[in-house]
Amino acid sequence: MTDSTTDTDRYWHTGVSAITPESVYVRGYKLDDVIGLPFTAATFLMIKGRLPTPQETKVLDAVLTGVLDYGLEKSGTAAARYVVSCNPSIQAGLAAAALSAGDYGLATENTARFISDTYEEFKASGETDVDAFAEKVVAKAKAEKRRIPGFGHQVFKYTDPRAQILKKIALDAGLWAEPAELYEAVHRAFIKLPGREHFPINDVAVLAAITVAMGFTPEESTALAILGTLPGVVGHISEEFASRKVQRLIPPETVHYDVPRRDLRTDLAAAGWDTDV
Amino acid sequence: MTDSTTDTDRYWHTGVSAITPESVYVRGYKLDDVIGLPFTAATFLMIKGRLPTPQETKVLDAVLTGVLDYGLEKSGTAAARYVVSCNPSIQAGLAAAALSAGDYGLATENTARFISDTYEEFKASGETDVDAFAEKVVAKAKAEKRRIPGFGHQVFKYTDPRAQILKKIALDAGLWAEPAELYEAVHRAFIKLPGREHFPINDVAVLAAITVAMGFTPEESTALAILGTLPGVVGHISEEFASRKVQRLIPPETVHYDVPRRDLRTDLAAAGWDTDV
Amino acid sequence: MTDSTTDTDRYWHTGVSAITPESVYVRGYKLDDVIGLPFTAATFLMIKGRLPTPQETKVLDAVLTGVLDYGLEKSGTAAARYVVSCNPSIQAGLAAAALSAGDYGLATENTARFISDTYEEFKASGETDVDAFAEKVVAKAKAEKRRIPGFGHQVFKYTDPRAQILKKIALDAGLWAEPAELYEAVHRAFIKLPGREHFPINDVAVLAAITVAMGFTPEESTALAILGTLPGVVGHISEEFASRKVQRLIPPETVHYDVPRRDLRTDLAAAGWDTDV
Amino acid sequence: MTDSTTDTDRYWHTGVSAITPESVYVRGYKLDDVIGLPFTAATFLMIKGRLPTPQETKVLDAVLTGVLDYGLEKSGTAAARYVVSCNPSIQAGLAAAALSAGDYGLATENTARFISDTYEEFKASGETDVDAFAEKVVAKAKAEKRRIPGFGHQVFKYTDPRAQILKKIALDAGLWAEPAELYEAVHRAFIKLPGREHFPINDVAVLAAITVAMGFTPEESTALAILGTLPGVVGHISEEFASRKVQRLIPPETVHYDVPRRDLRTDLAAAGWDTDV
Repeated sequence: MTDSTTDTDRYWHTGVSAITPESVYVRGYKLDDVIGLPFTAATFLMIKGRLPTPQETKVLDAVLTGVLDYGLEKSGTAAARYVVSCNPSIQAGLAAAALSAGDYGLATENTARFISDTYEEFKASGETDVDAFAEKVVAKAKAEKRRIPGFGHQVFKYTDPRAQILKKIALDAGLWAEPAELYEAVHRAFIKLPGREHFPINDVAVLAAITVAMGFTPEESTALAILGTLPGVVGHISEEFASRKVQRLIPPETVHYDVPRRDLRTDLAAAGWDTDV
Repeated sequence: MTDSTTDTDRYWHTGVSAITPESVYVRGYKLDDVIGLPFTAATFLMIKGRLPTPQETKVLDAVLTGVLDYGLEKSGTAAARYVVSCNPSIQAGLAAAALSAGDYGLATENTARFISDTYEEFKASGETDVDAFAEKVVAKAKAEKRRIPGFGHQVFKYTDPRAQILKKIALDAGLWAEPAELYEAVHRAFIKLPGREHFPINDVAVLAAITVAMGFTPEESTALAILGTLPGVVGHISEEFASRKVQRLIPPETVHYDVPRRDLRTDLAAAGWDTDV
Repeated sequence: MTDSTTDTDRYWHTGVSAITPESVYVRGYKLDDVIGLPFTAATFLMIKGRLPTPQETKVLDAVLTGVLDYGLEKSGTAAARYVVSCNPSIQAGLAAAALSAGDYGLATENTARFISDTYEEFKASGETDVDAFAEKVVAKAKAEKRRIPGFGHQVFKYTDPRAQILKKIALDAGLWAEPAELYEAVHRAFIKLPGREHFPINDVAVLAAITVAMGFTPEESTALAILGTLPGVVGHISEEFASRKVQRLIPPETVHYDVPRRDLRTDLAAAGWDTDV
Repeated sequence: MTDSTTDTDRYWHTGVSAITPESVYVRGYKLDDVIGLPFTAATFLMIKGRLPTPQETKVLDAVLTGVLDYGLEKSGTAAARYVVSCNPSIQAGLAAAALSAGDYGLATENTARFISDTYEEFKASGETDVDAFAEKVVAKAKAEKRRIPGFGHQVFKYTDPRAQILKKIALDAGLWAEPAELYEAVHRAFIKLPGREHFPINDVAVLAAITVAMGFTPEESTALAILGTLPGVVGHISEEFASRKVQRLIPPETVHYDVPRRDLRTDLAAAGWDTDV
């Protein structure tokens, strides 16, 4: 493969992998050599383009196992089981689960983007006092009535134990870096506001903070959260196949139907149609 | 655009549409002219590559409205609502609904393939007596313990009223063609078997028969069934957005949980791991 | 089915359809009666919950045929063909096409949301002079450096012929209502800015304006645009199946590969791993 | 949570996980404890319902890294990049990649199903001589003109080096179990047929054999293959976002267009429509 300089005019560019007749090079390494690497290290390699350190691998393991499964109390799992109950294709089920990550669950990217942008602003500001900067961030959000993402949890009022576990793993590995520290400063400033004492940094937010601190983009942060849940989704899909139930429906006793009874011909005439549409 | 003969060596071929700097040609017609055509006629044009007759359009309307919506008692609708409750993207919801069509619902293609293949065999056989051929088809399926798709309905025991309505529209339009007649002959032979009197041709099977009779492929038959349900799915997604509920879950009172309580460290040691994984 | 008042406490609500043992009611009408209705009218019914007038049906036909297909020069078509070349499932192909609608193509919802929100603000403002209000909208967008969506076209500099065709159909049907007129006023104010004379309202924006004027939500607007393109996608998927090519790839001669050659063991050691990972 | 016996009548069953107000139990273990486990071990746990041994984890790492990425020469990667070029949603891109696994690539399940079914038949047959049984399998497939999946490779004629690497890892871990050995016997019988010497067991087939030998179902085998490729897909999606290109199309110079020019009014009249449709 000759990568001539004029190549850069081509329609597509990639640095992820290249194929020769005898070999596949992923991020530059022979696939033959990479086979057998811990999958977490390979995940880091494929996304970031370089091998992780053992510490980075350990923290990425924590990220990927941080939200393994919430069972049937997660929209994506429900969606996947409904899909495969009618279309017994594991691809379709996994796709439905991935598509269910979003603003209301699993998509860490909003929080990651906030952390990432705030950190960029901090660096650009020339400010050196993290806490003073954080106070301004909170004041500005308050003035603009913008929500700061990642604070508060349905159950936990002061600390979220899962968030603490994740943070400790990142701290121990020396990977609770500046963007995460700045986010904590923002949190400290936030809970000074009256009535906000009960808003801990939640687990999803810590996942976001760690991925930003490790250098992942906000979208990659969401991708890692999705990846982490897929083994659980596979478990559920296998249960669904084993259930021998097909064509799952929403149990009618959980539905309020508000469907009147009408006559089509009458209403078509009223809408201006010839009677014999 | 010069369509030189050597072009046929190119990697991609298409006859669906072409773009020039000023115009778009769909199936050869200027898009500017096609705008405003009844969408059903445009659907036929885009898939089959030629304009339909008014009769074909009427029958295609019947196909597309044949399975408009089964509400929350359809897996695809449920899946779509779960997906958008977490990821408020209508694209994701429509994709989940499309992915839910399959062997256990909405995918007419298995029946369409049976009708299509049986008709090909009939033509290739030189046989002229449709009923005699149909008897052989049923006998062969019985011997090979293969199910003939499309017979039987959960509720209707002798005739499926929706199937009759669909067939009548095709008959009136002169489009209940030979493949559909052969399938009916197979059905007549089938219900002669003892205990099979209660198996009418169901509505999905009539949809399949009509689409084959109109010259659609089995896969296109499924696509038309999916297309027909999507407006209902849009209605449900809009209801979901309006509900202000997010992160839908499977109501826990409908779930049997069979999750024991175990200790990780104990079981890791038992599985041969060093204690400090 | 008894719809007792306490039903409203149930987890799910729907007004789209209901099933009884013998019948399906879609938006209140017996499905048996609705079968055979023009699909465009049925589409309106399922989404809006009421029958359209013949004029509304005509305009909705224009919306649905407004962007029938841009062939292989549309990302969604390309994605669908790549998917089915490896996984010959028409469901998967249609899902990929639906997922490709977005901020950079086919998703009319951003423009529809702008039109819808601007119209709400206009009504709330008490202002009666549409043009005076429009001037303020443009001035505010300029001050806040926000882009007003829907103005400008890659090819057409003064008027977009397709946009004109769509507008004329809506005008003739009496459905070019106030939100659309307000959007035109915003456009008139916009092109007064120096250097903006060459920015016509484009076809996608007119689609958005018409759907808002007809009372569809922004998300429904995108759904209608997706629905309109699906028949073309089916045509392409059928071509792909007929091509007998499988496992489509990006032609290597269109790719610039920037993949260095590295040694795994060396780099693992450098990253702090024991040599025998 | 009381799991009373009557619970088993409920509509849904699951053993994957359960949530209490304070904790999440995945496969019985507190999620808090599982956080930080190697993701590969967690993947095994979530799918199989029990912790893997270190050897099983090692082999699963090999499975997951067995097909990390084939770059732009894989349909799923291409599909994902096309999708996100128009809809910048990483969920949509991952879904498109998952949907691209199928009969013509990445779906190991057909081979896994063959291996699994053949092994079941072997055990049921009472036969003790693996090679004698394998001869019969090959003879029967030949008689029925059925293809045995997994033999042959586009490039490698005698041995597939990647397949050898994977097999060695499974052998070393003591996990190249009976189903895999039987499959090899089938291969030995197969290459005795004249003209078949050049058909090695390929890498995808070895992946299938290993997953069956480890007790995964055919569908789970495909899921693992998909999971293994997703990090590479994330890498490509990030490249696509960074490219600043939007609305990717199939380069026109790679397309043969076969779109005639026709007149709509003429052809509508010929198809039997009133001229003023």
